[in-house]
Amino acid sequence: MIRINENYLKLQASYLFSEIRRRTDEFQAQNPDKEIIKLGIGDVTRPLPQACIEAFHRGVDEMADAATFRGYGPEQGYEFLREKIAGADYQDRGADISAQEIFVSDGAKCDTGNIQEIFAADIHIAIPDPVYPVYLDTNVMAGRTGLYQEGRYDGITYLESTRQNGFIPALPSQNVDLIYLCFPNNPTGATISRSQLQIWVDFARENKALILYDAAYESFIRHSDLPKSIFEIDGAREVAIEFRSFSKTAGFTGTRCAFTVVPTSCTAYLGNGEAHSVHDLWFRRQSTKFNAVSYPVQRAAEAIYSDAGQKQTKALIDYYLKNAALIRREMETLGYQCAGGENSPYIWIYGQTDSWAFFDLLLEKAGVVCTPGAGFGRCGEGFIRLSAFNDADNVVKAMANIKKALS
Amino acid sequence: MIRINENYLKLQASYLFSEIRRRTDEFQAQNPDKEIIKLGIGDVTRPLPQACIEAFHRGVDEMADAATFRGYGPEQGYEFLREKIAGADYQDRGADISAQEIFVSDGAKCDTGNIQEIFAADIHIAIPDPVYPVYLDTNVMAGRTGLYQEGRYDGITYLESTRQNGFIPALPSQNVDLIYLCFPNNPTGATISRSQLQIWVDFARENKALILYDAAYESFIRHSDLPKSIFEIDGAREVAIEFRSFSKTAGFTGTRCAFTVVPTSCTAYLGNGEAHSVHDLWFRRQSTKFNAVSYPVQRAAEAIYSDAGQKQTKALIDYYLKNAALIRREMETLGYQCAGGENSPYIWIYGQTDSWAFFDLLLEKAGVVCTPGAGFGRCGEGFIRLSAFNDADNVVKAMANIKKALS
Repeated sequence: MIRINENYLKLQASYLFSEIRRRTDEFQAQNPDKEIIKLGIGDVTRPLPQACIEAFHRGVDEMADAATFRGYGPEQGYEFLREKIAGADYQDRGADISAQEIFVSDGAKCDTGNIQEIFAADIHIAIPDPVYPVYLDTNVMAGRTGLYQEGRYDGITYLESTRQNGFIPALPSQNVDLIYLCFPNNPTGATISRSQLQIWVDFARENKALILYDAAYESFIRHSDLPKSIFEIDGAREVAIEFRSFSKTAGFTGTRCAFTVVPTSCTAYLGNGEAHSVHDLWFRRQSTKFNAVSYPVQRAAEAIYSDAGQKQTKALIDYYLKNAALIRREMETLGYQCAGGENSPYIWIYGQTDSWAFFDLLLEKAGVVCTPGAGFGRCGEGFIRLSAFNDADNVVKAMANIKKALS
Repeated sequence: MIRINENYLKLQASYLFSEIRRRTDEFQAQNPDKEIIKLGIGDVTRPLPQACIEAFHRGVDEMADAATFRGYGPEQGYEFLREKIAGADYQDRGADISAQEIFVSDGAKCDTGNIQEIFAADIHIAIPDPVYPVYLDTNVMAGRTGLYQEGRYDGITYLESTRQNGFIPALPSQNVDLIYLCFPNNPTGATISRSQLQIWVDFARENKALILYDAAYESFIRHSDLPKSIFEIDGAREVAIEFRSFSKTAGFTGTRCAFTVVPTSCTAYLGNGEAHSVHDLWFRRQSTKFNAVSYPVQRAAEAIYSDAGQKQTKALIDYYLKNAALIRREMETLGYQCAGGENSPYIWIYGQTDSWAFFDLLLEKAGVVCTPGAGFGRCGEGFIRLSAFNDADNVVKAMANIKKALS
């Protein structure tokens, strides 16, 4: 009898976005003339940079001619792209990362979800709260948790991000083996300083733990003293893996390209304490279960690193950062405490009421859809997330509506 | 201490293709003037059909304009593509499959590798021998096998495909829960008839087992009495999942698009015997760990189903089938027993000697690289695989060289 992976039964129905949709649709039905502006989702709206479009077309043309046609590519990604990433995103910032340590993929969601496969089933895991749900759900599916009780899974160490700690969690007091961190953070928009990140790297080194560092929003960092990569921190090469994505950097959410950095010196252990290369394991995983990213897409991604591409992606991020600054400024003017919105596309707003009540208030009074913070974990209760990913005109209008409704 | 998934240590180094490369390079170094023709790998060489190229370009152009730009798409794939697949590949052939049952992905390798995650860790698995190594390796990684001994993993039921059974394995005599089948077969090129496939479907129904049917090479089937899909067989909707790919159908190996069909009535069970929807499980897996295929790539794939696309992909397959027929004819003329080469791009040749000796003979005497059958499993010993995926001129030349060398 074919039996299912019963760990799936522990998963909570991800009702957050469907509940947002239900309430929004219901309100729209009752108020058919009211314009609704969505600042809830984390998806980009601006077109791909022109440099990427041109390179994408050239890549497609190569597939039309037997002389330039490309079949299966290297599972780790083409060297032309990996060399550019290693140079511009790492070596130019003083981080010692080579092209061989880059794994190009079709998305950071896939990579952050799949990475746990290469570790033992009974390791102890630390996950932030509030959090992007993929880290948690993929470990539930793999059987690394107990049941879900009172808003949390048994067996997980939750790293609490609160107003009190400035949304930078404290080191765990119990033993943990694998630590998920994300900066600039989704959903709080918080960033981490070099010295704060050094504390985590030192902790991992002392405890033979490993840090999974999600830097999908690094391109929003503009303050020069903030680290864009964990590999800018001393000692990180032995104890960290980093996830990056072109989704937010260059509007690739529908185009699909990302990468993961696994240094060759990154180490995990056998039960008997023998050291083992994490790079080798991830290479084996990817070459067995993945078959590389579409060739024209890799050419489009490469163009991000051209002079024109760099200028155009900076303009793209500037556009969203301007939205973010406006949202934060207006919400603060209205008396709300905010995190994020600088060096980040997300603004995390303390509503002084429960998340869904604040959601309803913004929807009904201002016609603006946000994301209730409680959907990201217990520590998100009381907050909402507003996203800068929308057209500037819509954001201006949304903030004017909120101002009128709440002041 | 971060510990690794020790099941990875059971994996055998996949030395097959690196050993082929080593011997080929060594021969070339010793014979620098000798032309070597590669009929070993299963990768396409012809450009994408023009209809796909045009749709691909249009999709890229849509990404350049805010009015038509696409961000995150539906995880299951766009309906425009799923509707075409369900109509042309299934309903038009009398198979009751709807668009809702199609999951578009970036490759059949990913899907055949990931599917095992949704089943229990202690199910019993049946895998063909010889076989495409992904089925086996992904179950080894998941801990469903014992150690590798004398060429096989403990705990796996091997379905032997031999000259004696015409490369259609017999039903297993022991209890199995999950059965991998692949027709037209890689590497043997064998096809299965409706009545033979009905026997497997009936077996699965009687035993509450599930069949994973890899139909990546279905577009090579030209005999009208052979099934292209397992869903052309009565009763399969409850007990089968099918994997398809555009890689070989339309030359998408470097473009990346495939799909998996999971009927809503396909059933697996809890330990207590309660029935559970496999479609729901796969949807949960994909929506948690995958973020859809690149939008322009989905548009390129959709174009396969246009009138022009159908004509062009047929011409593409005809091209490779002509190569296949030539290879088989010449090898048979030389007195070798062959399978495949009709309704399949692979020709499986009984060499009456060990696989690597035959490999060396073809390389040294004819300058032709094949794949030694022993690399696909114990039952592959004594065979080689020749592939029709090369330019016709090269295949003609390769077969002339072989003829001269061996006759």
